[in-house]
Formats: sequence, structure tokens, C-alpha cells
Amino acid sequence: MIAATVTGHVWATRRIDGLPPGAFLEVQPDGSGSHLIAFDVLGSGLGERVLVAQGSVAASWFPGTPPPVDALIIGSIDADSTEQQQ
Amino acid sequence: MIAATVTGHVWATRRIDGLPPGAFLEVQPDGSGSHLIAFDVLGSGLGERVLVAQGSVAASWFPGTPPPVDALIIGSIDADSTEQQQ
Amino acid sequence: MIAATVTGHVWATRRIDGLPPGAFLEVQPDGSGSHLIAFDVLGSGLGERVLVAQGSVAASWFPGTPPPVDALIIGSIDADSTEQQQ
Amino acid sequence: MIAATVTGHVWATRRIDGLPPGAFLEVQPDGSGSHLIAFDVLGSGLGERVLVAQGSVAASWFPGTPPPVDALIIGSIDADSTEQQQ
Amino acid sequence: MIAATVTGHVWATRRIDGLPPGAFLEVQPDGSGSHLIAFDVLGSGLGERVLVAQGSVAASWFPGTPPPVDALIIGSIDADSTEQQQ
Repeated sequence: MIAATVTGHVWATRRIDGLPPGAFLEVQPDGSGSHLIAFDVLGSGLGERVLVAQGSVAASWFPGTPPPVDALIIGSIDADSTEQQQ
Repeated sequence: MIAATVTGHVWATRRIDGLPPGAFLEVQPDGSGSHLIAFDVLGSGLGERVLVAQGSVAASWFPGTPPPVDALIIGSIDADSTEQQQ
Repeated sequence: MIAATVTGHVWATRRIDGLPPGAFLEVQPDGSGSHLIAFDVLGSGLGERVLVAQGSVAASWFPGTPPPVDALIIGSIDADSTEQQQ
Repeated sequence: MIAATVTGHVWATRRIDGLPPGAFLEVQPDGSGSHLIAFDVLGSGLGERVLVAQGSVAASWFPGTPPPVDALIIGSIDADSTEQQQ
Repeated sequence: MIAATVTGHVWATRRIDGLPPGAFLEVQPDGSGSHLIAFDVLGSGLGERVLVAQGSVAASWFPGTPPPVDALIIGSIDADSTEQQQ
């Protein structure tokens, strides 16, 4: 997983079938200048620090046919005790 | 997922079996100078901003035997509200 | 796998369903300045050197429905004989 | 997928069981100085531009038990119309 | 796959269940200063050049329940004819 901060929201009305209810959020991984788009079912907000799982495990979490999502917010970070405090 | 812009089209007549109908589009991820080739079933056009899912979830989206594609355009970005506007 | 050192602990009370018992630990891969979050079931401690497996194999290790974790500490490194001693 | 150019051939007589007939080709991704080894069943030649799929989708393409290959040449590029002409 | 050179051995006595017989070897990918740990069932030696497959295909190679290994040495490189001779 990566620790990241929610930095935006992405809307895509024209989309392929099979995407579950939820939001596409832009997140910035800690210590990185780049961004990725993670699927969110927790109602995470702008500026919130989150844990993101990547790859097929993100899709496998959903019941039924796995949707084509490759990154999923799995939790909201309360606190951490790390050498890389932010 | 990544947000990216469609920058080109790739044709490959000689190809392995099992590829579904659709196009191979070159896309440039936001904030990156590199490119990747994503499979497209939405009819996305040059310059369009798209969401791309990568890895086995791209293949699993197709019904039947998963084709050997590792990147799929899953939506067209209408708008975003991000710190990294483009 | 990567060899890494445990550098912190992450708490996430609000989380999606399906996460197994265990801890989210921040680890720093050898020779890297970046960090990732790995799931731990071994009770690994701060400063411990560990082996981390990434991707869907981390989730497949768990019995039953694979949880949405993409990195798992699979062992504690006793010793190594490498060109890149730390 | 990535667009890449075939730059070499790799021979490995001593190998694990389960590898299908085909060749291990060294390819250089467009715009990159690094190389990777892709499995080839198309008879691709030195200097040919190819499309490479990576990850488990490369293995899943083969009938029967998936072999331990993580990159597969899926087509030969005839032509492209991209901002990054080569 | 990547071509890499075996640079060390890693021992991990305390480990999770489900790891098959074999060795954890440190390998250095060609043209890279970084290292990764690959599982080896071929008895590869220090300095040997090897082919490494990464991701879930490494685990799927093993019979029965896939072990939590994400990199597997699949062959020993006899010779190569590449632009990037080493």
C-alpha cells in the first residue's frame, strides 16, 4: 500500500460498463510529486490522508465480477508514527 | 488509475490471436514525459483526456477469455478539480 | 521481493471491510529514499529488516476471500551476504 | 502495453519447467534507456518495433497452465501516428 | 522478465507459512544500481546471470496453493546477443 493525500476529484461521465458506485479521487503519494487516481467508497475528502492498495487486489475487493479499477482507498489514516512525518 | 491524454494511434496488423475489437492508443500520463499504449473501446480521440486502468484488471473487464492487454481506457475525463490542473 | 527496514506504524480506524488481523507497517526499501506500507502478521518491530512480497500474491496468501492488501511482510531477515551490506 | 524495439536475443538452456515454445527477446521501450526481456511467439526480428504486454496477462494468454512469463510481444507495429515519432 | 546478476543470499528463519523449498537470492537487474530478492529453485550461484519473472506469475508456477513470492528465477542465461553486452 501507499500512504497518500487526497488532492482532487475526477469526473468521467462517458465510461465503460461495470464500474461500481463510488468516486475517482486524485491522490498524491507521500514523498512524491506525481499523482494517481484511486477509487473511493469511503467518502474520503480533500486533504485527507489515506491508504491506497494497487493492482488486481483493488478490483477483487468488490463482490461479483471484478471492476476495472486498479487502485482503491482502503482506509483513512488516523495517525502514524514514522520517520517520515508529514 | 492514471489520468492521461491521448497522443497517438498504433497499428499492428501482425498480432497474436485473442485481441478484441478496439484500438491501441498512445497516451501520455499527466505530469510525465513518457508514453504507454492503452486499449480503447470508447472511440477516444486525439487530445482527449482519459482514465486508464493498468494490469490484469484491464484484461478481466472483457467477457470470456481475458485478452493480453494490460492497459484499458475506462472513461473520458469531463472535468477535474485538482491541485494539478492541466 | 524487496529487502526493507520497518520505519513506522500506520493506524486506520475507518477502513473498508475485509481487512484481516494484523498491522500496517511503513517500510523503507534498501537503497531507496521512498516508503511503502506493508501488511504484517509476524509482529515485526521498528528497525527490523524484513522481506516484503508485493502485488496480488500478498492477498492470495490469506485463507478465504483475498483481502485488499498489496504488500506483505513474509519474513524477518536474519542475515545476508550481499554486495550491498547495510 | 509499451511500444518497444527488439534489441537482442537471450538464451537460457538451464531453465525451470513449464516454459512454452518461443524466444526470449531483449526489447528497449520507446524513450527509455533500459531494457526488458519479452517472450515472443511471432518470430520478431532484431530492430522490429513491437507492442509488449506485461504482467499476468502475458501468462494468461497461453492455453493450459500459465507459464512463468511476465512480458509478451502481442503485435508488430506497422505504423503509428504519434507526437513521439521514432 | 529482466536479465540480472545474482549478488547475494538472504536468510529469513522467521517467516510466514507457505513458502516452498528454495533460496532467496539478491539479484541486480542489468543496467540498474538497485536490487531485488528473487526466489530460486535452480541452485543459482553468486555472479550467475539469470532471467527473473516478476509478479503473480512467479507464484502461479508452483503447484498447489500459490506461495507469497513475487519474483522467480526462471533460467540461467547462457549467452545473449544484445546491444547492451555486459
